[in-house]
Amino acid sequence: MESVMGMINEFDTIAAIATAVSNAGIGIIRISGSEAMTILSNIFEPYNKKVDVHQLENHRIYYGNIKDGQEVIDECIVLIMKGPHSYTKEDVVEIDCHGGVTVVYKVLNLVLKNGARAAEPGEFTKRAFLNGRIDLSQAEAVMDLIDSKNEMARKNSMTQLKGGLSDRIKQLREEIIYQVAFIESALDDPEHYSLDGFPEKLLELDRQWIKTARGMLDSYDNGRIIAEGIRTCIIGKPNAGKSSFLNALLGEERAIVTDIAGTTRDTLEESVTIDGITLNIVDTAGIRDTEDKVESIGVERARKEMESADLILFLMDTSVQISEEDIEILQKIRDKKKIILLNKSDKVQEEGSFDSSVLQEYISEETPVISISAKYGDGIDNFIMELKNMMFHGRIDVNQEVYITNARHKDALAKTYESLECVQRSIEAGMPEDFFTIDLMNAYEKLGLIIGESVEEDLVNEIFSKFCTGK
Amino acid sequence: MESVMGMINEFDTIAAIATAVSNAGIGIIRISGSEAMTILSNIFEPYNKKVDVHQLENHRIYYGNIKDGQEVIDECIVLIMKGPHSYTKEDVVEIDCHGGVTVVYKVLNLVLKNGARAAEPGEFTKRAFLNGRIDLSQAEAVMDLIDSKNEMARKNSMTQLKGGLSDRIKQLREEIIYQVAFIESALDDPEHYSLDGFPEKLLELDRQWIKTARGMLDSYDNGRIIAEGIRTCIIGKPNAGKSSFLNALLGEERAIVTDIAGTTRDTLEESVTIDGITLNIVDTAGIRDTEDKVESIGVERARKEMESADLILFLMDTSVQISEEDIEILQKIRDKKKIILLNKSDKVQEEGSFDSSVLQEYISEETPVISISAKYGDGIDNFIMELKNMMFHGRIDVNQEVYITNARHKDALAKTYESLECVQRSIEAGMPEDFFTIDLMNAYEKLGLIIGESVEEDLVNEIFSKFCTGK
Repeated sequence: MESVMGMINEFDTIAAIATAVSNAGIGIIRISGSEAMTILSNIFEPYNKKVDVHQLENHRIYYGNIKDGQEVIDECIVLIMKGPHSYTKEDVVEIDCHGGVTVVYKVLNLVLKNGARAAEPGEFTKRAFLNGRIDLSQAEAVMDLIDSKNEMARKNSMTQLKGGLSDRIKQLREEIIYQVAFIESALDDPEHYSLDGFPEKLLELDRQWIKTARGMLDSYDNGRIIAEGIRTCIIGKPNAGKSSFLNALLGEERAIVTDIAGTTRDTLEESVTIDGITLNIVDTAGIRDTEDKVESIGVERARKEMESADLILFLMDTSVQISEEDIEILQKIRDKKKIILLNKSDKVQEEGSFDSSVLQEYISEETPVISISAKYGDGIDNFIMELKNMMFHGRIDVNQEVYITNARHKDALAKTYESLECVQRSIEAGMPEDFFTIDLMNAYEKLGLIIGESVEEDLVNEIFSKFCTGK
Repeated sequence: MESVMGMINEFDTIAAIATAVSNAGIGIIRISGSEAMTILSNIFEPYNKKVDVHQLENHRIYYGNIKDGQEVIDECIVLIMKGPHSYTKEDVVEIDCHGGVTVVYKVLNLVLKNGARAAEPGEFTKRAFLNGRIDLSQAEAVMDLIDSKNEMARKNSMTQLKGGLSDRIKQLREEIIYQVAFIESALDDPEHYSLDGFPEKLLELDRQWIKTARGMLDSYDNGRIIAEGIRTCIIGKPNAGKSSFLNALLGEERAIVTDIAGTTRDTLEESVTIDGITLNIVDTAGIRDTEDKVESIGVERARKEMESADLILFLMDTSVQISEEDIEILQKIRDKKKIILLNKSDKVQEEGSFDSSVLQEYISEETPVISISAKYGDGIDNFIMELKNMMFHGRIDVNQEVYITNARHKDALAKTYESLECVQRSIEAGMPEDFFTIDLMNAYEKLGLIIGESVEEDLVNEIFSKFCTGK
């Protein structure tokens, strides 16, 4: 794999629909490969008929008809982007046609009939990677950017796309390989290179590298939450006001509500993004209530949801006394990250009806307890502020830092971290220098996986197979 | 309205997402209006930073960053299409950014923040119409093209977009207005223009016009079916094999199955396109079976569905005898267009078990009776052939004819037809010539509505409000 990277490879010509497939103003068919212009010449008649399609100028837009023989299939504009100044570094042609599903497929099929192969998911970006325009972490950032659920995820993906992560990885690798080279030179040519005092210097460097790797690894918790959202479980008794609370959240002007892709209808999961934080909310009560006969399945699922949740919102009804069931729930979620919401703050409470001091026995001092009125929307601002403090410790800053959001990167960093720790132990144990190089090279190679150096073809294929078609 | 048509109007600058909004490779933000380039200059930094955005060349593609102040929002390509050589005849800029929902909305919001107004549905095409680039029937064809459900609908819309309908309407109007002008000249200046023998000549012309209008009106039945699909009701007893039949249809390699937009989940309507013919299938049994307690509502709805259907498919189980219920159904659908499907042709039939000759009493000779085996897919080809013969009388040819698919056009043509009939009656009654002109002018004006001459602003707004946003 490595041998072909960075130079333009000879691939066949591929084509796909690059826009979402649903009736809309514009739909784009993207073609990439050495035959792109030839295929275009077979099917495109510029408005100015005197123009030869093969002579169309680079980086220009042409208006005309897409034709199948004599029949006009659609009126389109065509974008010419010849390699290497294109997305894939190959010749790329984009046909912007009317965005109807029937039209878009008709044009795609015409392009395929004229010699292009249907592109696999992510194949355009894969070529951009294999042809050396972007590295693997940047390619992954393209997909993360497209899939970004909120403003923070978008910013973080953009930073990675601009090389924010790659630059750090590359720097770390350079520093490591420099020391490896030094050790090998010194072992080969001890007259000119001295290893006196080297282990001490390397130990110092290695500790810095470990710290850097640790920092990146630690960013994954926040990174995952930024990228995927906070898996949030709302619990509480049936009349505690869960749906009012959800409505109050959704009713926020700042809120963007979206369905979560890939979830089936019966999981009752909803995604709410407020101030750049995405909450993926599972209403466990909903699971239980769906059908009587599956009650036991529902309870079991609710328990699993609670266990896998990043955050529990426990909604309590302050208009009634704390029940034994409430206490049971509090005990169950003792070790979970949680926010207690005391609902119905609008209702006048009778003396002794709800004694919040009881809660103190079951929760730690750090657990936020917030009075809200889901009905009137009171306290929602407080809730959002506490949420941010809690999940990101007030530390999150996507403008300054790069967060690791990709499990593959995290795994590679974890292995890098292990190898660097081995180096530290070897130095501390007074092992000979050539011993260090093995672990240093391991760290170097694991870091390389992130940016796509020396990755196996299978892994590359697996990564890009998760992309959307047309990208 | 008429006064402003055909010249470039001074509108504000609008923007919208022009692609379908769902995560995909590319999303397009379209901007149109005199401020388009100024807005772009505020948010776009070309890759070659020395280039002044205001100096970007027409019909060129530029690669660079979309920025909000110092922050890079996305890497994009930008298309410059300055008026009048653009979709709207105004300055148009298209920003092709990464097609994630978060990214696309972020870029749109940035464009709006910099002075564009969010475009109303169809507003770009409305400007193309108001600025005289296309007429109203062509504008409507744009939307029909995008919404086209099958290949025939796409072809017909394309023909209309290319002026296929407009040209006929314009020719008819020219012929009519010429005769009106002649009558008026003759009445003003009888010395030079003689009306001797004129009524006879006009009568002959008028009869031709009536025939033309009639032909276009008649094409609406097929046109509607081409554009919207055949509203098809499948009926039959519970075990007649309806779901197997549906599966056999859907299993056809030629079949494209889509959900029908705008239908709610509980109507059980499915759209199947085979060989360019779209069947919108309502399974009435499904309606009845959904819930016991709404049985009566279900039956009532099934009855209504049957009444409004273009076609009834009556599926009979040939492994059992014809029942009284079958006969009742046959009586109910006596006057409907129908195909009788004798299912389970694969089963060996016992002597006398199913006597198809009984059917003859209840159906006309033209009603197709087709043996099928839904289970094994036998007879489906026959069914499709009969379907085509039946619905289009083997006469359909979207390459040669223009089919009226738009109810608005049909209404205008019906009124044209009436006025032309009035002319005929007036001539035959020997009325004076100035009497003809009133009805001729009526016909002329009604025809004008189709291409958008002298239409009211309210009507224009109503037509474009049905378009998708971004077109």
